[in-house]
Amino acid sequence: MFVYHIPTKIYFGENQLNFLSDAVSGFGKKALLVYGGGSIKKNGVYDSILLQMKNSGVQIFELSGIEPNPKVDSVRRGISLCKSEKIDFVIAAGGGSVMDAGKFICAGACAEHDVWEFISSGRPVKKALPLFCVLTVSATGSEMDNTAVLNNPETMEKRALIDDKLFPVASFCDPALTYSVNAYQTACGSADILSHLMEVYFNRNQNLFMLDTQMEGMMRTVVKFAPVAVAEPENYEARANLMWTSTWAINGYIYGCKKNPWSCHAIEHQLSAVYDITHGLGLAIITPRWMEFVLDESNAEKFCRFGKEVFGIESSGHSIQDARRAIDCLKDFFYSKLNLKSTLSEINIDCSHFESMAKNACSPAGYINGWKKLYPDDVVQIYKNCL
Amino acid sequence: MFVYHIPTKIYFGENQLNFLSDAVSGFGKKALLVYGGGSIKKNGVYDSILLQMKNSGVQIFELSGIEPNPKVDSVRRGISLCKSEKIDFVIAAGGGSVMDAGKFICAGACAEHDVWEFISSGRPVKKALPLFCVLTVSATGSEMDNTAVLNNPETMEKRALIDDKLFPVASFCDPALTYSVNAYQTACGSADILSHLMEVYFNRNQNLFMLDTQMEGMMRTVVKFAPVAVAEPENYEARANLMWTSTWAINGYIYGCKKNPWSCHAIEHQLSAVYDITHGLGLAIITPRWMEFVLDESNAEKFCRFGKEVFGIESSGHSIQDARRAIDCLKDFFYSKLNLKSTLSEINIDCSHFESMAKNACSPAGYINGWKKLYPDDVVQIYKNCL
Repeated sequence: MFVYHIPTKIYFGENQLNFLSDAVSGFGKKALLVYGGGSIKKNGVYDSILLQMKNSGVQIFELSGIEPNPKVDSVRRGISLCKSEKIDFVIAAGGGSVMDAGKFICAGACAEHDVWEFISSGRPVKKALPLFCVLTVSATGSEMDNTAVLNNPETMEKRALIDDKLFPVASFCDPALTYSVNAYQTACGSADILSHLMEVYFNRNQNLFMLDTQMEGMMRTVVKFAPVAVAEPENYEARANLMWTSTWAINGYIYGCKKNPWSCHAIEHQLSAVYDITHGLGLAIITPRWMEFVLDESNAEKFCRFGKEVFGIESSGHSIQDARRAIDCLKDFFYSKLNLKSTLSEINIDCSHFESMAKNACSPAGYINGWKKLYPDDVVQIYKNCL
Repeated sequence: MFVYHIPTKIYFGENQLNFLSDAVSGFGKKALLVYGGGSIKKNGVYDSILLQMKNSGVQIFELSGIEPNPKVDSVRRGISLCKSEKIDFVIAAGGGSVMDAGKFICAGACAEHDVWEFISSGRPVKKALPLFCVLTVSATGSEMDNTAVLNNPETMEKRALIDDKLFPVASFCDPALTYSVNAYQTACGSADILSHLMEVYFNRNQNLFMLDTQMEGMMRTVVKFAPVAVAEPENYEARANLMWTSTWAINGYIYGCKKNPWSCHAIEHQLSAVYDITHGLGLAIITPRWMEFVLDESNAEKFCRFGKEVFGIESSGHSIQDARRAIDCLKDFFYSKLNLKSTLSEINIDCSHFESMAKNACSPAGYINGWKKLYPDDVVQIYKNCL
């Protein structure tokens, strides 16, 4: 039993950003443009937005410098601007960090309390400004979902807010805008997409076969096209397939009744909270070790199906063995095909914070209630297996 | 390049109809309930709707007797009721015919002209009453799409209206409500679902690999679960997989840039317009003959991929031969696994109307601009191959 409702409108394809002025029509005359380090000034996105808004009589205010793993202080600056300037809607142009910052700004601008209280005190989102996203990196799927993630350096926390009021009104997905994403970030983004699918695929909740076939098809797509996009950054077909998959991997379509908490994301969020590493890289290091840790006779069949449908592994008749081969294929994909680092040691992370990170990952319940229940000791072991 | 926007909210699962009163809240106090032959009085749907509306203070008017392949006169009666009683919203409880009638009523109730003029004169849908659907047959996908089909016995036409204002506001999809759909109708519905997928899968427009994987997964789902539902009508898993696949097979998700006109639906609509046969049966008879007719060296690869991904046919290295095996598998599925009639002769249709039907199927362009362009002579040949 579930409810499906994704109201976000998507403009997909080359030059679809030209419809931004149509899309924002009727939403007001003052907009906040949120972006990151300025790459949108190189690829024409910034100029296009400013020109369209000017022609539509919309006044633009700017909040630049949103960092990867966006920080609560940046969001607070955006909220102040929205309140002082009476902003009507927000345009977030960038990757997941920029879009997530935009979501928090939209919610925070309509609240009296500090924005971190949505997380620390579980305050509900009563209202949010309309959000429009211009996607420039295929990874988080934030352009069509109801979720945003925020870092709080003071508390060393990276936490997610989930609320249907966070769905963007419309998002602009032009695969050509991701041509300039470098090989490393393309690889990390692809790992993130794949992880969103695996977090749901390996799930003990009630099931729909049909949704598993959808996830398998999306995983096959990432496995096929991520190495192409890494090798040929301006391959439109590869960029388009990755972009549309990133959007659908997390917007809610694949969930059905699968509402289990995620495991690898919880474990990884502590890594990027403490060490500020790229989320997708952390996932690529952790996920195969999580798989090895949870694999047993009771769940090997699902790994075998994963191996068959995603990597084409034929059954040997021995399920644990086939499951291990599937995990090895995933490692080969991350570490050879995508050339990502395979251990925490290689990125200068040692065991010093494992205990507290594991505790945070299991907070507040004291365990991660995922495919297999994990307690802090389990999580520490998974971190250690990543060294 | 495409735009994706499906605003319909779906309540999926057992007893989700209980949320109807929540869903219609704020939409007004006068509703028209549209249904067919009264099966909703046996499965509790009718009582549940009436009770919920009574408790919400909503006055219900009724339009019953919507026939399979709904007729324009039934729709006109509904529109008159909406206008005379100042109806606020419409609830359509049934299969595709009832939902499609509901869509035409919602559009016609807001128009000054006769409802058939949406089709005959291409009048735009400027406004439509809000529509809520309660699904009782998995087939047409009308519960989440922007399309409605209507029969006009005077002109012997069966034509579709496509407009985003026809999307239902919300639909209730409870697989248990399809337990009473008999084996024949289950088979026909499944053929319809499969056809919606094949009409898009075999398409010469710009492509996304990812969407092909999604369609293949949905086709595999139908092939796996339709025979189960035929044999075990109260198998929830089979009914649920068919239901969710029927919804996604036609709501727009799988289209991307694939906007080619459909071939088999155009050819079949003439059959059900003239002979009033069940749409899915017509599709099951026509589709394999259409495939045999269009198959050549230039398109055999797509049939081979279809055979491999949907029916598990391994490549023999000879693509035309593998394509024929794929078509044979589809015939076996329709005529043996689902036990549908395999020829027009078996359902007492002869060649008397083939010429005029073919002309209508190719109207107004003079040809069907599908995967392979078909002229009236081609369509007559396909009809003849179905005898």
